[in-house]
Amino acid sequence: MAKPKKTPRPKAETPKGFQDYFGTDVTERKAMLDAIAAVYHRYGFDALESSAVETVEALGKFLPDVDRPNEGVFAWQEDNDGDKPGDWLALRYDLTAPLARVYAQYRNDLPAPYRRYAMGPVWRNEKPGPGRFRQFYQCDADTVGAPSVAADAEICAMLADTLEQVGIPRGDYIVRVNNRKVLNGVLETMGLEADADRDAVLRTIDKFDKVGEAGVRELLTKGRLDASGAFIDGVGLSADQAEPVVAFLTSKAATASETLMNLRHAVGASAMGAEGVAELETIASLLAAQGYGPDRIDIDPSVVRGLGYYTGPVFEAELTFEIFDEKGRKRQFGSVAGGGRYDDLVKRFTGQAVPATGVSIGVDRLLAALRATGRVGGAVTGPVVVTVMDRDRMADYQAMVSELRQAGIRAEVYLGNPKNFGNQLKYADKRNSPVAVIEGGDEKAGGVVQIKDLILGAKIAESATLEEWKERPSQFEVPRDHLVAKVREILESQD
Amino acid sequence: MAKPKKTPRPKAETPKGFQDYFGTDVTERKAMLDAIAAVYHRYGFDALESSAVETVEALGKFLPDVDRPNEGVFAWQEDNDGDKPGDWLALRYDLTAPLARVYAQYRNDLPAPYRRYAMGPVWRNEKPGPGRFRQFYQCDADTVGAPSVAADAEICAMLADTLEQVGIPRGDYIVRVNNRKVLNGVLETMGLEADADRDAVLRTIDKFDKVGEAGVRELLTKGRLDASGAFIDGVGLSADQAEPVVAFLTSKAATASETLMNLRHAVGASAMGAEGVAELETIASLLAAQGYGPDRIDIDPSVVRGLGYYTGPVFEAELTFEIFDEKGRKRQFGSVAGGGRYDDLVKRFTGQAVPATGVSIGVDRLLAALRATGRVGGAVTGPVVVTVMDRDRMADYQAMVSELRQAGIRAEVYLGNPKNFGNQLKYADKRNSPVAVIEGGDEKAGGVVQIKDLILGAKIAESATLEEWKERPSQFEVPRDHLVAKVREILESQD
Repeated sequence: MAKPKKTPRPKAETPKGFQDYFGTDVTERKAMLDAIAAVYHRYGFDALESSAVETVEALGKFLPDVDRPNEGVFAWQEDNDGDKPGDWLALRYDLTAPLARVYAQYRNDLPAPYRRYAMGPVWRNEKPGPGRFRQFYQCDADTVGAPSVAADAEICAMLADTLEQVGIPRGDYIVRVNNRKVLNGVLETMGLEADADRDAVLRTIDKFDKVGEAGVRELLTKGRLDASGAFIDGVGLSADQAEPVVAFLTSKAATASETLMNLRHAVGASAMGAEGVAELETIASLLAAQGYGPDRIDIDPSVVRGLGYYTGPVFEAELTFEIFDEKGRKRQFGSVAGGGRYDDLVKRFTGQAVPATGVSIGVDRLLAALRATGRVGGAVTGPVVVTVMDRDRMADYQAMVSELRQAGIRAEVYLGNPKNFGNQLKYADKRNSPVAVIEGGDEKAGGVVQIKDLILGAKIAESATLEEWKERPSQFEVPRDHLVAKVREILESQD
Repeated sequence: MAKPKKTPRPKAETPKGFQDYFGTDVTERKAMLDAIAAVYHRYGFDALESSAVETVEALGKFLPDVDRPNEGVFAWQEDNDGDKPGDWLALRYDLTAPLARVYAQYRNDLPAPYRRYAMGPVWRNEKPGPGRFRQFYQCDADTVGAPSVAADAEICAMLADTLEQVGIPRGDYIVRVNNRKVLNGVLETMGLEADADRDAVLRTIDKFDKVGEAGVRELLTKGRLDASGAFIDGVGLSADQAEPVVAFLTSKAATASETLMNLRHAVGASAMGAEGVAELETIASLLAAQGYGPDRIDIDPSVVRGLGYYTGPVFEAELTFEIFDEKGRKRQFGSVAGGGRYDDLVKRFTGQAVPATGVSIGVDRLLAALRATGRVGGAVTGPVVVTVMDRDRMADYQAMVSELRQAGIRAEVYLGNPKNFGNQLKYADKRNSPVAVIEGGDEKAGGVVQIKDLILGAKIAESATLEEWKERPSQFEVPRDHLVAKVREILESQD
């Protein structure tokens, strides 16, 4: 008889580009987000958790990430509703587009200005690649409906406080502030009116981080040979025309007032440019009044990321300490948060311009920074494991864990097959258990339990001589009713 | 000249069946989930956050909710990968199917048994309807790889502890335990071998909650007129054949030992049935050893929800206090959590049966219960609002909020247009602010600030006579450097 054909088994695989997070991966991120939320709350920001799904229509397309032009969303069409074709729905790709939709929808009920924070996963339909994930966390705070740059200054102060709150010490970070209006003033003073020319200059400015002053100068004028030997066409400006852009990018000086003076020079007679410089000046003075010096928040026109997207002040938080990259080279940790003012957020829904400013923290990068500096992570202590010597006395063992838990001690009974005691100790090892509890028949009869200090046991096994082993036993016999007290004593000694 | 045709504005609407959560909707749920996670952690469970997206292949189809047969998932197809058609991906519809995939995928690295908890949104592609949402939270704890019913007993104990931890007092809840094997024994003793007959009996049992003993008796035999006058066909059993099912459903007695005796009678000579009763007996004795009496966790064969899905013990947590329903009638709050043993979880991936047991808490229902009893929610206090009397002195006002925040007080400066002072007070009102701070030119010159107790002010405005008003002013003038101290004093007096 022919064998019945079997359906092949499904593959147990995380979809490509997605990730699963286990144990401390989850709890450490959560602790960091909780710390951030506490700061946001203290600043008067309210939580918002919008639907993960939006209509494609509402989502629109205004991604800030110029680095990722191939980006898409995960979308699907609803079933027909009678004769009407179903709506297209999609997973949100950031937390800003949903904020625009929510604000437009509920604007009559929300306080004005509306300060809100949001944290949660977003999804991007990109080709998966190393370090490029299709689901990741964002953590945003935005103020909608506040035209004053006091709102921008507040976001910068909050960002600095947040970094310190999660564990980045003062001196290890800097929040840099720039202004799109200053750049607009520069473009105006250069006489660049055509959008194509402006876009070409903006794209060049975006490369300032990589190619530096001389490189930008070449790219704005005659073009440049890049490191691979390929020739990159220039924008075709004259050296004189290029000068204000270079002056803008390199205007950072030792003090904010010198920097602002340089910027005033760079914008020439442009009214827009003057307005931008005045805004930066206001931000600097508001922050100074609150005690945020340039060691924490600094006016820095070399911040160019996102300038194409935002409409006013732009900010970026960088971690300035050094780490070793994959190739073992020292480098600064770099950017962990960015934001700015984007005044057209709600307009596409309502027709009314609504001023808005906000910041987005790169959750994974900030967490990586905390781990890289040992401020999060390290050795993890698992639960106390009560072993099972006699499977008919499970009730006794359950009573022990119950007592331990009621005393606030994380504890569990071994629930696998208890036959092989070695497996139970291997399990305790895999769980990083600090303590194992053992009660065999003899112990039960004698009214005692054995308590094994697994941390000390491991240390002794690694390095101790026989003499030391005898002097410092890692296993203790105590009366049954001293169980909780002895376990607590061992746990405290391990701290 | 003809007007250029405009693209219509997108509608600012939450997609049908989805919801947005604001402020305390978010933070109260989070606080509840944090409290639950703390209990799960103490029991040795580890966090797992799997990808929200799964392959449709891995997801399979094993929804426990027999109530929702039209259920689907939100799915889409990936782009072609060369010549290969793209995978179908979907949003997870629960947290159990992803656990099966994760366990099968990582089984060599995970501890065995593996205790894990997971909390997060799940998505169901259902027709939206009142109270029926397409995205909602689940909160699950499961033990994979533990064949012993000690694992089931532990889940029940943890569920009871969890309910008390979030604020349901002892006496206001009951965790009921039943066992699918007992029902299988009943079916065996009835001589029902055909799957179709068994399924018909299972479907009838599912109606026990609604139609009661007499109704089930009719449905198992000759059929029944329902409340609307429609005739529902019966399964066609004889009265004798139906008897063991009825005996099973009504076997609950005053004590667990009596209930177990009734069940032994109902399963007759079935070995499977006897095994099921023995399991319930073990669970009862394990729980008794830990001090969980029948006032908290009880053996109750009338728990029928999910019996068709699970393979062993089944549990359900009910809240027993009464609330008023939408029609003003008193009723018990009802079920907030359910679970049980399902031993075929991982088999479809690996071919090996892996025992598993777990519980899922209905997050929205439990939160609704806490709100209905006033244990969560109530009056919300907003931030202290520093008003802006002189827009040129924003730095002064920012310095005030900065001082307040550094003292741990939630505070914000008014960031709207400050021209109309009435709007600022309206804003403070909308924010539920407890205190407003005012510093005009006179105050600045005199080195003082005005501090307004908005809670007291509202009370006085509502009810007080002019005399009382004079005696209990709600506005205080204090030296500028007493700002923080006075605000704190007022906040403490409001508690």
